[in-house]
Amino acid sequence: MPADQLSTTFAALADPTRRAILARLLSGERSVTELAEPFDMSMPAVSKHLRVLERAGLISRGREAQWRPCRIEAAPLKEVADWAERYRHIWEARLDRLDSYLQELKRTQPVKTKERNHARKPRRK
Amino acid sequence: MPADQLSTTFAALADPTRRAILARLLSGERSVTELAEPFDMSMPAVSKHLRVLERAGLISRGREAQWRPCRIEAAPLKEVADWAERYRHIWEARLDRLDSYLQELKRTQPVKTKERNHARKPRRK
Repeated sequence: MPADQLSTTFAALADPTRRAILARLLSGERSVTELAEPFDMSMPAVSKHLRVLERAGLISRGREAQWRPCRIEAAPLKEVADWAERYRHIWEARLDRLDSYLQELKRTQPVKTKERNHARKPRRK
Repeated sequence: MPADQLSTTFAALADPTRRAILARLLSGERSVTELAEPFDMSMPAVSKHLRVLERAGLISRGREAQWRPCRIEAAPLKEVADWAERYRHIWEARLDRLDSYLQELKRTQPVKTKERNHARKPRRK
C-alpha cells in the first residue's frame, strides 16, 4: 500500500467518478445527496468514493450533524500540478518538433493541400 | 478496472518507484539496467514497474533487440498537467487567504515576533 501523500492522491484520482465528484465541487460545497444525483450509483457506492477522496485529503466534510457538506481541498491538487510541471519541457519540446514537421510539410506540399480543399468545397454546399 | 487514459495514467503514477523512474528519464534515454541501479529491487520487479509505465503510455521502449532503451512520453504527462490546471484557482484562492491572514498577524503582533527572534539568537552561537 502506498504511504506517501502523492501516491495516495494519484490513487484517489485514478477513477473517473471521483474526478467527476471533484469537478462538481469546483462550483462550491455540496451535500452527499447532491453529489450522488448525476451518477447511476447507490448512496453507499458514492459514500465509498467520498471516503477515498477524504482520506487523500482531496475533500473535507463539514461538521454539521445532518448535512455534512463536502468541499474541495487545494493542497493535494497543487502537489499534482507542481509534480507535472517538472515535465513541461518534455511535452513542449515534442510539440515544437511536431510544429516544425507540419511547417515543413506545408512548405514542401503546398499545392496538393490547396487542391484538396478546392475539390471538397462544392460538396459542402 | 479503469479503462480511460487519465485513470490509467494516475494509477501508474500512484507509486513512488515509478515516479522515480520517470524522473530519471528526464535526463534522457536509459537501459533497464541503468534504471534499476539506484533501486534496491530485483530486475523482474523493475521490469514490472516499466511494463505498468509502458501500458499507460508514459514511457516507450526502443526496438533494438539487445538494448531496448526506455524514454519518457509526453502526452499523458501533459494530460495530467491540463487536468490539474482546472483547479489552479482553488489553491490560488486559498494561498491568497493565507497570505491575508499572515499580513494581518504581522500587523497586529509585530513586536512579539521580533522579541522571539532576539531570544533565540544567542542560543545558536
